[in-house]
Amino acid sequence: MTLSIDDIRSAAKLIKGAVLRTPTVFSPALSGLSRTNTYLKLENLQVTGSFKVRGAFVKLSGLTKDARSRGVIAASAGNHAQGVAYHAHNLGIPATIVMPKGTPFTKVAKTEKYGARVVVKGEGFYEAEKIARSMAETERLEYIHPYDDALVMAGQGTIGLEILEDTPDTDVLIVPIGGGGLISGIATAAKALKPQIKVIGVEAALYPSMAEAMGKTDHPSARGGQTVAEGIAVKSPGALTTPIVRQLVDDILTVDETSLELAVAALLSEQRIVAEGAGAAALAGLMTAHNQFEGQNVCLVVSGGNIDNRLLSSILMRALAREGRLARLRIELEDRAGMLAKVAQVIGENNGDIIDIHHRRLFYDIPVKMTEVDIVVETLDPEHVGKLVAAIEAAGFPTRILDGTAQGNPG
Amino acid sequence: MTLSIDDIRSAAKLIKGAVLRTPTVFSPALSGLSRTNTYLKLENLQVTGSFKVRGAFVKLSGLTKDARSRGVIAASAGNHAQGVAYHAHNLGIPATIVMPKGTPFTKVAKTEKYGARVVVKGEGFYEAEKIARSMAETERLEYIHPYDDALVMAGQGTIGLEILEDTPDTDVLIVPIGGGGLISGIATAAKALKPQIKVIGVEAALYPSMAEAMGKTDHPSARGGQTVAEGIAVKSPGALTTPIVRQLVDDILTVDETSLELAVAALLSEQRIVAEGAGAAALAGLMTAHNQFEGQNVCLVVSGGNIDNRLLSSILMRALAREGRLARLRIELEDRAGMLAKVAQVIGENNGDIIDIHHRRLFYDIPVKMTEVDIVVETLDPEHVGKLVAAIEAAGFPTRILDGTAQGNPG
Repeated sequence: MTLSIDDIRSAAKLIKGAVLRTPTVFSPALSGLSRTNTYLKLENLQVTGSFKVRGAFVKLSGLTKDARSRGVIAASAGNHAQGVAYHAHNLGIPATIVMPKGTPFTKVAKTEKYGARVVVKGEGFYEAEKIARSMAETERLEYIHPYDDALVMAGQGTIGLEILEDTPDTDVLIVPIGGGGLISGIATAAKALKPQIKVIGVEAALYPSMAEAMGKTDHPSARGGQTVAEGIAVKSPGALTTPIVRQLVDDILTVDETSLELAVAALLSEQRIVAEGAGAAALAGLMTAHNQFEGQNVCLVVSGGNIDNRLLSSILMRALAREGRLARLRIELEDRAGMLAKVAQVIGENNGDIIDIHHRRLFYDIPVKMTEVDIVVETLDPEHVGKLVAAIEAAGFPTRILDGTAQGNPG
Repeated sequence: MTLSIDDIRSAAKLIKGAVLRTPTVFSPALSGLSRTNTYLKLENLQVTGSFKVRGAFVKLSGLTKDARSRGVIAASAGNHAQGVAYHAHNLGIPATIVMPKGTPFTKVAKTEKYGARVVVKGEGFYEAEKIARSMAETERLEYIHPYDDALVMAGQGTIGLEILEDTPDTDVLIVPIGGGGLISGIATAAKALKPQIKVIGVEAALYPSMAEAMGKTDHPSARGGQTVAEGIAVKSPGALTTPIVRQLVDDILTVDETSLELAVAALLSEQRIVAEGAGAAALAGLMTAHNQFEGQNVCLVVSGGNIDNRLLSSILMRALAREGRLARLRIELEDRAGMLAKVAQVIGENNGDIIDIHHRRLFYDIPVKMTEVDIVVETLDPEHVGKLVAAIEAAGFPTRILDGTAQGNPG
């Protein structure tokens, strides 16, 4: 198989009107943080919230009339499911999506909303994939691969055309890698239009399958486990994508879970957009390696925004704790009237805003005449947390920081 | 004073390169919800996270050399503060910002980050404003009004030019109203370019000052109080803006706090962008009155994205509870071994995901041999919550819903 700029140009003509032409925006805040000129290609604003609709549309449009009437099947717990379901519905093609057990309710509901038949079956993605392939055979359905397909890659490659149309001065493109379909398409387009452009892939450190295939990782044993970037948690790279990545991609960075979480939080707080873990991977990569790109025009592909609201909420709260803007303190005090008021007074005098108090009166590891109170306080920064803790202790109340970040000597 | 399209065209030339040209994007999800073709002008992606930099830049650029060297002063707890501080810094003008007491730490910090001197003084905005005006006199500083200024309005009006450049087929423009500077500028631009366009303003129901000035509200007594849209919580509309609004704005909608909160949540979940309360007001207005606009091309001005992470996090969790995707249940059980396990089993069998358990062993309003447990469960929808509660009760455990939404007969 070969993938050429012409395939991608044809795909671009095809998808016009069927998917959104998403904007590429300059980010002053992220530019400041990374000392680059940072641009973002906002595929989180794409219909269904991810780039997957591009490839899905090109693939589905290429099916024969007979295949269309028989219907399609795909395995996915996430964006590929919605991409296929969405366009199959629009094109009048019956779609079946196999989702592994434990897929969040909302993802099932969203896929069903697009009119697909959803089969929840199989432990994890790879079993769901097997089931989908076997159903494809028995039910004579067309199996739609999430990435290892020339038409799918050509569809994703249209992102590369659009970026270079909007920001032709781009020096570096940073793109998340799961199976490699997105980066294969983008790299093919970008290198054809601008051979000197750098294309950098980013993988979750827990799933460095493409980096391994390139011989580019130090920890080949690390593979699998819970990642916030489940959209790129792929155990083995594609047979078709790997040679393209090997030929065209300049480097692959791997990013750990903390970087991914911080990147989601930064996009939310600094850029006011919602990205899923995989969608924030390019920013995580940039923040890991920004010294390499100082002063250059860097475009990050924010590939999707489908993140669970609960997860997003905890990422927000954890970011506040990390920045020293929220601290959970466990304070020991004598179990008698007025003590809690005194603690509250000290906190108030030191400009801490009490958000939540949890008074623990049943606890074993402290003397019986003592009690403990857990207080969540809004603070200014880690230094403020340090000062606050010092003041509470100075007033006679031993204090531990349960969550939060303190600077200075809090004892 | 008059404000003309030429003033706005001059402003547009002036701001080129100093502020971002933000995108106008189509929203398939919000279009589906509102039965309109919904477009969003994303000023939340603007530098400093709000449109205020536009007017601030035009105003500051218009100062004499003498005024520039003396410096400027403004009163604001929010976006105007950052807008003025940001451009004053870039233009080398000393800036002082008076922020009312109780302004969140982060807003103070962000304004200081832009190099401004921040004075935290005054109870509430109006006292801070008085202090700023008096300091302006004693320290010979130029007072920068947040909206009642022709240059400021001209700056904000550039948004109208950009929208009609990007989406000339717009039938209806929906714009939040605080003091009226934003809508005055936008309406002046839009009506000059396309006289038949409708311009609709949206105010928070707690601060319907412009609607009142137009004689367009039923509840003239409702004014003041805590609103999630503090960016448009203005008690009296501008002297310069009011006549422009009266002449050019077709209607003013008022939206309650629940609508504003739902709009922030919808922009986050459905559109993957972060809007502050005021920034979501246009969507709240559309959802309130969407029948009026069915089938039309509606552009909402998402004026800003500066919302506190903690507030955003609670909006997310409350949205989940409202949608029946999260329920907090208080369950009564006998205080003996194995009871909690039984409850957990029933929940599991009914596909509820337990997220949090809080076991209350000290409580007065139930018999002494009984205890209570508060369980937070992830659920599919309100019907699922109803079924779950029914199943727990059928197993012999009286259950109350503390947070969440149940459908059907949960007893």
